[in-house]
Amino acid sequence: MSKVRYMQKVDQILSAPWLVTVDANDTVLEDHSLVIESGIIRDIVPTADVRERYSGPELALPDHILCPGLINAHTHMSMNLLRGYADDLPLKEWLEGYIWPAEGQWVDEQFVADGSRLAMAESLLGGTTCFNDMYFFPDITARLASAAGMRASIGLIVIDFPTVWGSGPDEYLKKAIAVGDEFRHDPQVSVTLAPHAPYSVSREPLEKISTLSAELDIPVHIHVQETAGEVQDFISQHGVRPLQRLAEIGLVNPSLIAVHMTQLEDSEIAMLANQGVHVVHCPESNLKLASGACPVNALLRAGVNVALGTDGTASNNDLDMFGEMRTAALLGKHVAGDASAVNAFQALRMATINGARALGLADVTGSLERGKAADIIAVDTARVDMAPVYEPVSHVVYAASRHCVQHVWVAGKQLVKDAQLTTLDADALTETAQQWQQKIGKPATPARNN
Amino acid sequence: MSKVRYMQKVDQILSAPWLVTVDANDTVLEDHSLVIESGIIRDIVPTADVRERYSGPELALPDHILCPGLINAHTHMSMNLLRGYADDLPLKEWLEGYIWPAEGQWVDEQFVADGSRLAMAESLLGGTTCFNDMYFFPDITARLASAAGMRASIGLIVIDFPTVWGSGPDEYLKKAIAVGDEFRHDPQVSVTLAPHAPYSVSREPLEKISTLSAELDIPVHIHVQETAGEVQDFISQHGVRPLQRLAEIGLVNPSLIAVHMTQLEDSEIAMLANQGVHVVHCPESNLKLASGACPVNALLRAGVNVALGTDGTASNNDLDMFGEMRTAALLGKHVAGDASAVNAFQALRMATINGARALGLADVTGSLERGKAADIIAVDTARVDMAPVYEPVSHVVYAASRHCVQHVWVAGKQLVKDAQLTTLDADALTETAQQWQQKIGKPATPARNN
Repeated sequence: MSKVRYMQKVDQILSAPWLVTVDANDTVLEDHSLVIESGIIRDIVPTADVRERYSGPELALPDHILCPGLINAHTHMSMNLLRGYADDLPLKEWLEGYIWPAEGQWVDEQFVADGSRLAMAESLLGGTTCFNDMYFFPDITARLASAAGMRASIGLIVIDFPTVWGSGPDEYLKKAIAVGDEFRHDPQVSVTLAPHAPYSVSREPLEKISTLSAELDIPVHIHVQETAGEVQDFISQHGVRPLQRLAEIGLVNPSLIAVHMTQLEDSEIAMLANQGVHVVHCPESNLKLASGACPVNALLRAGVNVALGTDGTASNNDLDMFGEMRTAALLGKHVAGDASAVNAFQALRMATINGARALGLADVTGSLERGKAADIIAVDTARVDMAPVYEPVSHVVYAASRHCVQHVWVAGKQLVKDAQLTTLDADALTETAQQWQQKIGKPATPARNN
Repeated sequence: MSKVRYMQKVDQILSAPWLVTVDANDTVLEDHSLVIESGIIRDIVPTADVRERYSGPELALPDHILCPGLINAHTHMSMNLLRGYADDLPLKEWLEGYIWPAEGQWVDEQFVADGSRLAMAESLLGGTTCFNDMYFFPDITARLASAAGMRASIGLIVIDFPTVWGSGPDEYLKKAIAVGDEFRHDPQVSVTLAPHAPYSVSREPLEKISTLSAELDIPVHIHVQETAGEVQDFISQHGVRPLQRLAEIGLVNPSLIAVHMTQLEDSEIAMLANQGVHVVHCPESNLKLASGACPVNALLRAGVNVALGTDGTASNNDLDMFGEMRTAALLGKHVAGDASAVNAFQALRMATINGARALGLADVTGSLERGKAADIIAVDTARVDMAPVYEPVSHVVYAASRHCVQHVWVAGKQLVKDAQLTTLDADALTETAQQWQQKIGKPATPARNN
């Protein structure tokens, strides 16, 4: 009998010198192949053996590091149209003096469509395969993500004040339920309930969100304790810290995705660990707004799941998860006063599997393991800025930039090929963004403080 | 009489929508042209008028920001061959346990030639046109920089212990004078005297260096007060802080380029300002080694000239001055607790004109002004990760990455054209680096601390 009869036909074989799995043991495999069938990683085998067991198109990547696609665990995609609109300002002034007024004037369906598509293009080219969003018109962003082939966790926003998306908490919640229903069966779109922050969403809607989250098993995605001033103001008004308020309402549980958390007391860290809360660290946004620094090393040591996000480009000003990983590692060492803190492996976990866990997607994505979706990036090392390679994980975190990403797959579909998008038109998106800038103009009061 | 008789023939005209001059007023010109003749910026005129006054080949860059070439004010170029050799370790252990042993075993003329050429390729592609180096075999790095067309400030290293470059301070100084002589008339190579650090160079050679620096008018490039431990050890051994020792020797003056300076008291900041000392901030290296943070905002407010460096790739792990600018701005805000501190304009100045000043090259490079060398980079904004553009300087610092650099000129010669090197062979350098990695292997004791 011929050997060929035992060979399995598959959709794609990817072979590379380094396969960074981000599994529970941080396994790095050398000279291995990923075997992909129906969008799923069916097998991982030594490249020397793959042809004995599988047939199908093979892409040999002789100089590449294969990693899980990166997960941006907190962002506001559409705000890409406000990239660099106002800089060098503290959070409160930036938000109330510039961003909220501009949003009030300009955000509509078209803004969200153009901004979020631009952000998807930027994300994919930089190796981000999944994002956790929070913005108005979440249905539009969800539909466009689905069309582009990206994986998306869509925040269904709730805020006390009226916006173009709704008149107040009741309408936001009604719309949240409707959007959640629309995407219930989309394999690549999941949703979160996304109250903006404890200071901007009252107790009553937060209680409804708590009930809904428990009933429907949907995560709650919220900004918490981003700045010292915010915490102080909250205590003045409510007599408790914001996190304590969330705990009273029953929101401090494994469904909570608490973003920023630059202000944390030891007892709060212990509570987060005990209750299985997920924290999303956004180091570049926090630094840029001088909001403080999330105590990442202390959280990781306490066993808290810490994911990583860029925040929106209006406060970053990019969606570069490579930069964010490096900044997380560097800042984590600085804050801990220990060069071995937040090491390269931990930074990579924060940008991959920890994000998947926070979004409730750990069975689907975040690592290269059998049975998971083929959400994969290929990082090229045959470049003057990546040579030589001693340790691939160190290289991904400390040396690679997003421009080293050559190929990207989501659920087995190649969305970036040779650094070019396959499902989005980069030139058209760039031109559209520039047209928005012409229309929006510069802020009435220039933010520059030189 | 024909108008054409009054037109001046020039070598090159570069026209762009944004010209970020980094002059004394931080002028940003819109729709202007740089007129280049014999490697010098001869004129800067509105693009609408340039053809009335000058003839010559014009490169119209319709979507680009033209900036001065970036100046990496502290690095160890050849160490590119040790990029990622040992990570996630504090300075002392990293240096004494890994880097110095590897250097002792492997550094020779070929290592320096291959490493520094790799570093030049990486630097140029990332928009760095000038570097301030400190390493062994400085003559080799100088010759190769000259051959590649880069601008280089070459540190003539002095250290107490013997290395492959010399038996001790006397030989290092002898060689320093010889190398200085060799490049006296090279228009693109200047030199510094480069004692490694107060803790690694004794008083006697430092006194000789002080005398030589004054006699020959050569800057002194030295690591100072990089970590708290170093300062404590120095006080224990010598009874004074390192900077005080340098002051006693007469080295605290406008020729001093003091690198790192993470440990500074208020009285020291005042002394640096009064004495016209230049400080080089290396934020990513300092963070990665958890060495502390240079108080940049306080230094700038005191009037100290602060330049920016990547340090070597063994502690960074790249030579990306765009990343370094962004990190300097972000960390500066964090350390100052003020989002308006170390703004985009200041960060760009640190990476350009302040570096030129520190190296004694402010008349030659560091800004786009008439009479200066045509050291220029063109940053492309027609990209999904750069659109839209509200404020070009904010974009260069907060949004751009080094891969947005499309063209680079040094002294009017184009060294990067469409993101490709014109004087160095990227593929050959990458392959050579990988051969070095094969030969060197991984450290005997893996540095990973997971």
